[in-house]
Amino acid sequence: MKRNLLLTPGPTQIPPQLCAALGRPIIHHRTPQFQENLKEAVEGLQYVFQTKNDIYLIPASGTGAMEACVANLLSAGDQAITIEGGKFGERWTELCKAYGAKPEVVEVEWGSAVDPQVIKKLLDENKNIKVVFATLNETSTGVVTDIKALADVVKKTDALLVVDAISGLGVVDLKMDEWGVDVVASASHKGFMLPPGLAFVAVNDRAYKRAEQTTSPRYYFDFRKAKKAWEKVDTAFTPAIGIVIALCESLKWFKERGLEENFKNYARLAKGTQAAAKALGLTLLAKESCISNALTSINLPENIDGGKLVKIMRDTYGVSIAGGQGYLKGKIIRIAHMGVVDEYDILTGISCLEKVLKELGHKFELGAGLKAAQEVFNT
Amino acid sequence: MKRNLLLTPGPTQIPPQLCAALGRPIIHHRTPQFQENLKEAVEGLQYVFQTKNDIYLIPASGTGAMEACVANLLSAGDQAITIEGGKFGERWTELCKAYGAKPEVVEVEWGSAVDPQVIKKLLDENKNIKVVFATLNETSTGVVTDIKALADVVKKTDALLVVDAISGLGVVDLKMDEWGVDVVASASHKGFMLPPGLAFVAVNDRAYKRAEQTTSPRYYFDFRKAKKAWEKVDTAFTPAIGIVIALCESLKWFKERGLEENFKNYARLAKGTQAAAKALGLTLLAKESCISNALTSINLPENIDGGKLVKIMRDTYGVSIAGGQGYLKGKIIRIAHMGVVDEYDILTGISCLEKVLKELGHKFELGAGLKAAQEVFNT
Repeated sequence: MKRNLLLTPGPTQIPPQLCAALGRPIIHHRTPQFQENLKEAVEGLQYVFQTKNDIYLIPASGTGAMEACVANLLSAGDQAITIEGGKFGERWTELCKAYGAKPEVVEVEWGSAVDPQVIKKLLDENKNIKVVFATLNETSTGVVTDIKALADVVKKTDALLVVDAISGLGVVDLKMDEWGVDVVASASHKGFMLPPGLAFVAVNDRAYKRAEQTTSPRYYFDFRKAKKAWEKVDTAFTPAIGIVIALCESLKWFKERGLEENFKNYARLAKGTQAAAKALGLTLLAKESCISNALTSINLPENIDGGKLVKIMRDTYGVSIAGGQGYLKGKIIRIAHMGVVDEYDILTGISCLEKVLKELGHKFELGAGLKAAQEVFNT
Repeated sequence: MKRNLLLTPGPTQIPPQLCAALGRPIIHHRTPQFQENLKEAVEGLQYVFQTKNDIYLIPASGTGAMEACVANLLSAGDQAITIEGGKFGERWTELCKAYGAKPEVVEVEWGSAVDPQVIKKLLDENKNIKVVFATLNETSTGVVTDIKALADVVKKTDALLVVDAISGLGVVDLKMDEWGVDVVASASHKGFMLPPGLAFVAVNDRAYKRAEQTTSPRYYFDFRKAKKAWEKVDTAFTPAIGIVIALCESLKWFKERGLEENFKNYARLAKGTQAAAKALGLTLLAKESCISNALTSINLPENIDGGKLVKIMRDTYGVSIAGGQGYLKGKIIRIAHMGVVDEYDILTGISCLEKVLKELGHKFELGAGLKAAQEVFNT
């Protein structure tokens, strides 16, 4: 019964209403009843993805959605562009290599976003690029990519734009159809407030046509099988029934609150967290120009061990935030603003952060972080 | 609140205790707490798989587990044997072809099991066979394969034996280590009484070494990544946290009751169902010599529409059984004996079957099925 607040960037806190939905008795998936659930889920997702395209629901965690994109859209030997400004950008590169494709890697300093003009130049120079893989919200750094600007560049070429929106969808704006993004991949356990285990892939016609031509081996993740099944309001393979049913409840909340209100809310939470960090004498990892509203990455002073900080907050006080990944391990903390989290949750997180920073010897005025956030939340 | 009894061969009924576990608040997966869950889950699975081998937990439905086997154990051009005596045997063939492997297809009449001597002859004639793919319990027909006899044949060769035990594991006996099976694939939503969305693959050293040598593209399903993560009691990618936690509860039940008692129980349920079918003047699809204890497939008289029968039982009376698949569509019904189902559930199913058979004009003595089953259950 001890508090266990998740301010981690996936999984996020599951509200009790969705816990209850996850605990409902199971129904069989080849029934009119489940077809209603499937239709409701896809329609609700189309609202959040801001698209009229088909969205395939595949039981898998986020990496499965990413692999589905690579396996369907590239053949061995195909050239692609990947953008590495963090761990999840690197994953696109690794996936391309696993499929024998040739990624041209654009390296970006962690904490910075890619300059769309760099991508434009590469596409101008090399007409054989088949896909540009991007990341909406780089979870390892808290950087948001300007997907609209990237789409403006890519849509003028034959390349497809594929966006990993696993973290960030429903939290920051991504207008799939209006901006011209070809494929958007996401998953259940971040903005959608559900357990990991259900991946979503929205695919436009241009991308689907490519999937019909590529030769990479695929079966479970095959868009062609998914599309054929969806034409009969079915799934190619046994669906993640439990999560799909709970997803319908999650999506009602998106519809009730409205996407625009959602984006505003998370922006406010992010700004409050940023202000709190600064008031505690800390700096932010992500540059001002590309800082994400989905999570805030905070640099720690050299004398503070990030691993220890996260562990004490979680194990002693029941507040989970994330530490750093890759070379940032132990050096930063990450506080997520996704899903059901509200300003009182964020204040709880900041309060706990203040408590443990004090314990670890960091010098600051107690309450300064709370005060700074409170001011942002109430203007 | 209407009765909704699932006697379908996956998903199976989820007992309320597991529904409650599925509705618990989420915890983060990169924590000592979840590591305890992972360890408990793998140890419990090792008991049910009757193995000391590593078991990888991958968020996916059963087909994902099958694809993991093909992608890790075959390279393009490799030769393999598949056994087609139903829809799930055919899936192995399709998967092999998707990866550019060359399956030698052994066709078996639906309702019959493969003769291990046929496999022996093929292996004797062709030393290049890399893998034999088999199905423990063919869900489309209700036939059980003699995996022990098959293993006796395959283990004397360089070929690997890979068994799809998605349906049937924990229900009928499969001694992975003692019999010498190299890989066993299963999933959460049949014997384990959980929602679909979590796949299990147990891999012995011989198979793992093969996975290190093959060249098929893979990433999410890569055994090498799974093994490396498991060495640190972790998963390669975000796990299906909710199902893993509920799985620990499911596995306690296996341990408490004991596997041998489980096998005896399902055998009794199967025999009762078979007796009931015969008492209603119906015949069984699977031959006596290979009939499975995991589900009973019953042939319908020509004047009975199987689709209609299943629909009325489900929509009017709240009892779900399965119809036929492939060329058996509309011609058979399938009643599962997996998971939490007990003799009272089976009697409910038979009672409802009698009611609807009467409605549809089949001639028999009302109560004859119940009586026959009751006699089996009480001797």
